[in-house]
Amino acid sequence: MTAPTFIAGDWGTSNLRLFLCDSRGAAHDQRNGPGAAQAHGRFADIFATLTAQWTGSHGPLPAVLCGMVGSTIGWIQAPYVPCPTEPQEIVAACTALEAGRLQIVPGLSCRSRFNAPDVMRGEETQILGALGLHEQLRQGRWILCLPGTHTKWAVVENGRVCDFFTALTGELFALLRDHSILVRNPQGVDPEADARAFQKGVTDQNEFPEAQILHKLFECRSRQLSGEFPAHAAASYLSGMLIANDVNNALRALSSSSTGRTVFLIGAPQLTQRYASACALAQYDVCQVDGGEAVLAGLTEVFRRLPGNNP
Amino acid sequence: MTAPTFIAGDWGTSNLRLFLCDSRGAAHDQRNGPGAAQAHGRFADIFATLTAQWTGSHGPLPAVLCGMVGSTIGWIQAPYVPCPTEPQEIVAACTALEAGRLQIVPGLSCRSRFNAPDVMRGEETQILGALGLHEQLRQGRWILCLPGTHTKWAVVENGRVCDFFTALTGELFALLRDHSILVRNPQGVDPEADARAFQKGVTDQNEFPEAQILHKLFECRSRQLSGEFPAHAAASYLSGMLIANDVNNALRALSSSSTGRTVFLIGAPQLTQRYASACALAQYDVCQVDGGEAVLAGLTEVFRRLPGNNP
Repeated sequence: MTAPTFIAGDWGTSNLRLFLCDSRGAAHDQRNGPGAAQAHGRFADIFATLTAQWTGSHGPLPAVLCGMVGSTIGWIQAPYVPCPTEPQEIVAACTALEAGRLQIVPGLSCRSRFNAPDVMRGEETQILGALGLHEQLRQGRWILCLPGTHTKWAVVENGRVCDFFTALTGELFALLRDHSILVRNPQGVDPEADARAFQKGVTDQNEFPEAQILHKLFECRSRQLSGEFPAHAAASYLSGMLIANDVNNALRALSSSSTGRTVFLIGAPQLTQRYASACALAQYDVCQVDGGEAVLAGLTEVFRRLPGNNP
Repeated sequence: MTAPTFIAGDWGTSNLRLFLCDSRGAAHDQRNGPGAAQAHGRFADIFATLTAQWTGSHGPLPAVLCGMVGSTIGWIQAPYVPCPTEPQEIVAACTALEAGRLQIVPGLSCRSRFNAPDVMRGEETQILGALGLHEQLRQGRWILCLPGTHTKWAVVENGRVCDFFTALTGELFALLRDHSILVRNPQGVDPEADARAFQKGVTDQNEFPEAQILHKLFECRSRQLSGEFPAHAAASYLSGMLIANDVNNALRALSSSSTGRTVFLIGAPQLTQRYASACALAQYDVCQVDGGEAVLAGLTEVFRRLPGNNP
């Protein structure tokens, strides 16, 4: 076992995860803390407290942090690097703190294929991680999907991030599940009925893949009323509809003769599995990458590429 | 002035509006009361109390009621008449109450063009009213739009309602305005900025008319951040996006070589005006029909067609 050489931190809006890592990115220890929205500006204190024991054992280690810690609600505002860009440019744009001991990974910006401005912060590190973990991603043109509250769809070509766009899939699902007429009994727990309803949501969406979701959502209610699935499985049906709509139309927008037929899905396994079901029906293979592993690999990749850290 | 001959009632989920009408449908007097959701089963009491003065003056008049009063949360459950259907079939399916003195207008059901079950209750009466108010609707094939919490798009051919579908436009707008990351300052009041942002929302949506709204919604945030419109106008931008997405894609779904190039917009004038803006950009003419006038005309049409009431 090699000695710890740096601290990797995934500091999002709601959660902080700190890892004591060796130079290969293996985590020896972990601490959890409050997200940027709950930090109330006490970033330096929180970081020092959570890492005190590690500092006691190993001295003050360098650290790489990503996520909302670099946003307007964060420790310091790190820039957005415009796409297309490549890993070395992202690393070069890191923002130093504490006399260079801490580095904050920048976000990415782009003009999306819908001619709109778009931004990501945190997902760029997962993409860097996927590029490190999957050698095939560094050659050719690939579609990446990072499902979540705000799902990011990105195109990577020869290891460069070309562009991306944001889908409101996760936030929209939560709003409709919790507040709309579509789901009236979200508490029901019936894994089998839920799985069937999810799959039906995906399949029904595929029958009219170009129909607007605005014109399909009410089916989540009307098909309950007509007995096509039980009311307590409505949230699962809604999830299937939204994910299939997201997947089908993102693949239509992003696919070209030069993109591979494998979609890289990066995120929480439970969620990437749902996206994988929709990709399968759209005739795409998938490669599922655990989001936690990807962020750790990305932070390690940044650390290794920082000046003076080359192994 | 002719004498009052019947009571027309629009009894929706949230509101009850009762009108003392003559046989031409002119309202001589009006009473407002609680919607079906607030009636707590006291429908007969509420009706008797609100109409007591009219009964005192004119004796017990016949009444025609439409809306959620005929639903599972209503006074009595009136059926859904399957489409395609025509006015006389709708009238024949009215449900009688109080020894035939009261008639409840049935809803409509259909298998939508997205192969899904769909229903309406209340809007069928507005459609009947529009057919009575606009003679041209009784010949040829027309697209009707009834904007609201659940916008209904219907196709009418030679006076028959062929089919319809429901768009969640209004409910989705309210959810995203009140609960999402997209709108953070809904209280701002600046009519000029709001009008510009609404129009920009419509125009931006038209740049990629086939793009899924799921992939466009985040623009409501990212374009604020990049300064394309002020944060306090975000709700107006969102409204423009959603309405243009609804209109463009409904017209694509419903238009054929045989449909007229005029869309009949039936509803609250403030809302039909917004839909009219989106229709204009989609190169459609509109005929705006006041929703209140339409429901009164529809209830009158039903009353006149009931057995024994022919003028």
